[in-house]
Amino acid sequence: MDEAAFLDSYDPDRFERPSLAVDLILTSVVNGAPAVLLHRRRDHPFAGSWALPGGFVGIGESLDDAARRVLVDKAQMDGAYLEQLYTFGAVERDPRMRIVSTAYFALLPAERFMTAAALALAQIDRPEDGTATASIAGEPVPLAFDHAAMLDLAIRRLRGKLDWSPVAFALLPERFTLRALQDVHEAILGRPLNKPAFRRRLIDSGRIAATGERETGASFRPAELYRHVGQG
Amino acid sequence: MDEAAFLDSYDPDRFERPSLAVDLILTSVVNGAPAVLLHRRRDHPFAGSWALPGGFVGIGESLDDAARRVLVDKAQMDGAYLEQLYTFGAVERDPRMRIVSTAYFALLPAERFMTAAALALAQIDRPEDGTATASIAGEPVPLAFDHAAMLDLAIRRLRGKLDWSPVAFALLPERFTLRALQDVHEAILGRPLNKPAFRRRLIDSGRIAATGERETGASFRPAELYRHVGQG
Repeated sequence: MDEAAFLDSYDPDRFERPSLAVDLILTSVVNGAPAVLLHRRRDHPFAGSWALPGGFVGIGESLDDAARRVLVDKAQMDGAYLEQLYTFGAVERDPRMRIVSTAYFALLPAERFMTAAALALAQIDRPEDGTATASIAGEPVPLAFDHAAMLDLAIRRLRGKLDWSPVAFALLPERFTLRALQDVHEAILGRPLNKPAFRRRLIDSGRIAATGERETGASFRPAELYRHVGQG
Repeated sequence: MDEAAFLDSYDPDRFERPSLAVDLILTSVVNGAPAVLLHRRRDHPFAGSWALPGGFVGIGESLDDAARRVLVDKAQMDGAYLEQLYTFGAVERDPRMRIVSTAYFALLPAERFMTAAALALAQIDRPEDGTATASIAGEPVPLAFDHAAMLDLAIRRLRGKLDWSPVAFALLPERFTLRALQDVHEAILGRPLNKPAFRRRLIDSGRIAATGERETGASFRPAELYRHVGQG
């Protein structure tokens, strides 16, 4: 049998297969804290719980395309920095049926984040020694499925990548002050950083460049604006 | 139709779903070069090409369990350091049908690696600016599916993690010489390292400790044996 004949006779339905979904961790830093967009589930399972926006992967759709589609359809957003985070494949993670989910994070500057009106803004709370939880207006909200584990991994991944990848810059507008950059680092790391050491390190890294412009607005002494340059 | 109505009428079997597989990048450093275990495909598709060992994910099996099962069934190995690498979800990656594959790497010391008799040992070749390829006894071998991309990502991930994760130690026996540790680093990075600087950095890192023992064998001046300690 040649390959064409083999493919013609191949029966993909011989085995039961899991369903495949994507879930999005739409993250930004808002008011000095890591934040995520959630929607409240009206239906079973987990009715009343909050959940990450997600959807099933179509038969003719790549994983990345599915993530982009969910971003547009459920968050009415486009053009975020999207990155595959991890595939969650525990057998009992969804009570409906076997569903394996590939989690993506989508990083956005706070300003763009606020336009996702269909979803609610939650703060990500991550005690040093536990799993991440979320709260809305100070009230902890219960998360559906294994979405707390997804949030937790997203924060850990962001912490791990902060110093050598452009994730911090994906959370900021194109031009930003050093104070705003430090705020993002501190929010992700969950601890304060020494201001002179942070500024020296970032400027010495060659990853940012001064634009020669200054912020506009109410500031008494407007700070200089920087932009991200180079690979990292 | 609002979301509630949509979910009420939702039939999980209404949509065709992708199949889900795992593929293993069984990696070690052998004779100073990164190596991977491959099998030659006898059947279509890609008959005659070399491929990573893999298999479909069972309906009642977690992704991690599927990876462990493939490790035992196809490589006759157990107890490797297994880590999920990435989920490959391009639509046309398998000509049989839509198959999404979660790649895992399995890291092993060279000694244990040699016992996987069912598979062939291939060297991973990675030109600085291209995709990884594999060769057996110096001859390049064609890889099935997107397995060259999986190999390439595995090497890039190992490079990225070398300095802060225990991956290098997973590629070594429990007790190792500083020369062997440097060999592993050089093989993964694909470039030589300065010996005194490497030794100072590793010893200062607190990640290794001298055992007080020395290697046995033919060496004229047997080197001291170290072991991995701590989190990294």
